[in-house]
Order: sequence, then structure tokens, then C-alpha cells
Amino acid sequence: MTGFVSLVGAGPGDPELLTVRALRRLADADLVLNDALVHAELLQLAPKAQRFYVGKRAGRHSIDQSGIHQLMIRAARRGQRVVRLKAGDPFVLGRGGEEAIALEGAGIPYEIVPGLSSATAAPLLAGIPVTHRGVASGFAVISGHAESAYGPALDGIAPGTLTLVVLMGIKSRGEIARRLIAHGWAETTPAALLFGASQPGSFTQRTTLGDLVVHGDDEIATDLPGVLVIGEVVSLADVIGQFRAAPLAERSL
Amino acid sequence: MTGFVSLVGAGPGDPELLTVRALRRLADADLVLNDALVHAELLQLAPKAQRFYVGKRAGRHSIDQSGIHQLMIRAARRGQRVVRLKAGDPFVLGRGGEEAIALEGAGIPYEIVPGLSSATAAPLLAGIPVTHRGVASGFAVISGHAESAYGPALDGIAPGTLTLVVLMGIKSRGEIARRLIAHGWAETTPAALLFGASQPGSFTQRTTLGDLVVHGDDEIATDLPGVLVIGEVVSLADVIGQFRAAPLAERSL
Repeated sequence: MTGFVSLVGAGPGDPELLTVRALRRLADADLVLNDALVHAELLQLAPKAQRFYVGKRAGRHSIDQSGIHQLMIRAARRGQRVVRLKAGDPFVLGRGGEEAIALEGAGIPYEIVPGLSSATAAPLLAGIPVTHRGVASGFAVISGHAESAYGPALDGIAPGTLTLVVLMGIKSRGEIARRLIAHGWAETTPAALLFGASQPGSFTQRTTLGDLVVHGDDEIATDLPGVLVIGEVVSLADVIGQFRAAPLAERSL
Repeated sequence: MTGFVSLVGAGPGDPELLTVRALRRLADADLVLNDALVHAELLQLAPKAQRFYVGKRAGRHSIDQSGIHQLMIRAARRGQRVVRLKAGDPFVLGRGGEEAIALEGAGIPYEIVPGLSSATAAPLLAGIPVTHRGVASGFAVISGHAESAYGPALDGIAPGTLTLVVLMGIKSRGEIARRLIAHGWAETTPAALLFGASQPGSFTQRTTLGDLVVHGDDEIATDLPGVLVIGEVVSLADVIGQFRAAPLAERSL
């Protein structure tokens, strides 16, 4: 009997921000393959499952992408219910498409369970609406991992027309700010660095593009994943700032 | 005793795609204020709650935005647990920012619970990754509701650099396609119309920008909400097409 693979979006980290479907798949799983960015607490929701870490160790992948595909395919052929647990959403800069194609190619039954991407959840939890009437009627999500990818994307967006959300862009934030200013963005454009959204110890740094040009290459001492958001909507956190007063956990009923 | 307001993202419609937190808030709610696009099945998850419909009736708002604010504020002052249930994510083209500002201004304790936006969930459920290595390293989400908003946004994005996802853009899809082609996008660019993602009766129409120029003003006989996605990633649905074979409900374990 062939098993089944669920490519599951784990959301930003807090187990309460899993979807109901993700929670059910974890509860039923025989095997969980998880990334580095998947919060440890989530793995406890799969009590019956063998767990296999397929993320990075000391900056290097513990296993390459085709190795992950082979693990999923072999386990499904053994009849297992496999959950491939991916931080955020499987199709937002998560290589989920490649994994789906590999499963299709191998004839393995599978599904894809969407998850909350930190691209929208991190700004929301910091009191920043990525769209807001009269301020921004749209937003763009790009990867800050490699200049070859973010360069053309940044150059392709007219200054100030969209809110920019950059995932994997904390290290390159100085270079990103310099590129945007060279492309015509105002130095006064507000920006925020959002670390560990929804996770214990989460914190926010408010800045501007001009400030990022100067300080954007500094080390930030944290292991938490970070999201960079750029645009006038960032200033709305001054008003909406639900988390300036108290973290959600303390304020919820 | 003052109550509490939760601005809750309801996701695309399927109750399994609610977050665990959203499910808990509905279960505890005394009052639910819901939009037109919130799927009826979700309201049954709030058995104790009085329900108040604040969406559109026959194309007109049953109550205006400030009326919604007053309803939330008054109910909270009566000590009620209010869930303001919004389709998708409260901060993705949902006016959630305005509601948060109104609650802040009135001194009402509140939280914002992120939800799955159909901007990413609808493409995913149709087998379309909005980002894919070597095809698109980012995506933009814009509103197709008013030309004054989508015009500058569309003109501000260099042709083909990002996947475009347009919410509330089914009616204006012809005008959007004409504008993109005039701006330099290829007529052969694949596009898809995704109706009722995750809901019963959901369906997809595949097209191209060139075809939308000709047929994009035709009536489509459906009451389901639709998402327009434009870009080379749309072709990946040919391979990933999990839903061409069978709907998820039939294939899941």
C-alpha cells in the first residue's frame, strides 16, 4: 500500500497559528521531515512520528534537495504518512514546487497544505498592515537571499508604489537599501526588521532606508528568523502597535 | 468589565484552513461580525454567538465602515467577546488596519489574528507556486477593485519580474491585461482565474494576457470570489496539478 505525503506549511512558529488541517496531519504522521526554521514546539504535535531533520547545520544543508525528495518518496512507498513540514507557506519562497514536482514524477499521492507566510503574518503581528487605504494598495514579497534574484526584482518596482516585504533579507538589508535609494526611493522611507514573529523572544527594530545604508551591515545578535518590511505602512505600527503595550499571549482572553 | 475584540482572518473558506487560534476565538465568541465573503460554514463554529452580517447586500454595503467600528466598540463596552471575521487575512486588502485604528482610538482591548490570504492560498490549491526557482523569485499582490489603485501599481512593475496576484480583479481583468500588454508584458504570458478556492464548487480557468484582452470583459456566471494570477508560474499547474486529478477532500487520508 502506498502512503501519502503532505507538504505542510507550518506558519511563523506559534502552534496556534497552524491551520486545523496542518494540526491533523501532524497528529496522524508516521514521519515528519522538518526544516531549520520550523519551531521545535511544533514537532511535539506529531507524537507518533519519527522525525528527520533536513535543514541546515552550521550553515550547510544536512541533506540536499534531491535527498529530501528521495526520503519522502521512499517513506511513502513503505506506506507511511509523511509530513514535509516547511516554515511559513510551502509555495512562498519555500521550494515546495520542486518537492511537488518530484512527488508527481514518482507517482506518489500527495497534497499541499497552505500555511501562514511570515511575509504577511510578521508585519501583522507587529501592527503593520501591508496594505492600507490611501497608503499602499498592494505589496511585493521577494527573496533577499541572492543578489541575482532580488536585484532585478527591486529594480523592477517603481519607488513607493508597493510595500516591500523581503524574506531572508536581514543580511543583505544594507545592500537592498542602497539599491532602492539608487533606484529613487526616499531615504526617509520607514522600514522595520521583524525577528521571530509569533515566537518567544520576538522583537522589532524600526529604521529607515537611509539608516540601513549606514548601519545595515552591522551584526544583529539573534538566531531568530527575520523579515524586512519597507514602506510608509510601517509608520502605522505607531498607532496600531498592539504589541508595544503587551504581547498577544498576555492580552488574549 | 470591558470585553475584547479579535480581528480574525477567516482564510479562503474551508474550515480546515482556519488557524487554531481563529477556531478558538469563534468557539468563545459572544458576537460575530462577518463579511460577505466569509463562508457560511464558518459561522457554525461560533455556536454561542449572536451573528451580525456587515457585508454587501445586492452590491451595496449593509452598513458602512464607521458603522462596523461602532458595532465592535459598543459590544466590547458591553463586555462581549467580539470576533470581527474577515475573509482571508485582515491586513491583506481587508481594511483591517482601519478597524484596528478605530479600536485603538476607543481604548478597546483587541488583537489581530492572521489568516490565510487567498492571494497565496488560491494559487497553491490550484497547483501554482507563486514563487519557483528559476521562474519567479517574488510576487506582488494588488487590488483590482479600482483603476486608481491598480493602475499605478501595474505600471510600476517591470514586465515579467514578479508573479502578479490580483484580488477583486475578475471584473477588471480585461482592462488589467490591456494595461500590462501596453506596459510591455508578453501576450503569451499565462494567467489563471481561480474561483472559490477551498470551497465547494471551486474551479479554475486557464488563459493568457492576450486572450484576456479579447474575452476578459465577458460575464462569468458564478457567485464565488475569484483571484487572478499572472505569470510563467501558472504553467507549473500542468505538472503540479494536484486538483486536476481529484479534489483534496477525496485524496486526503
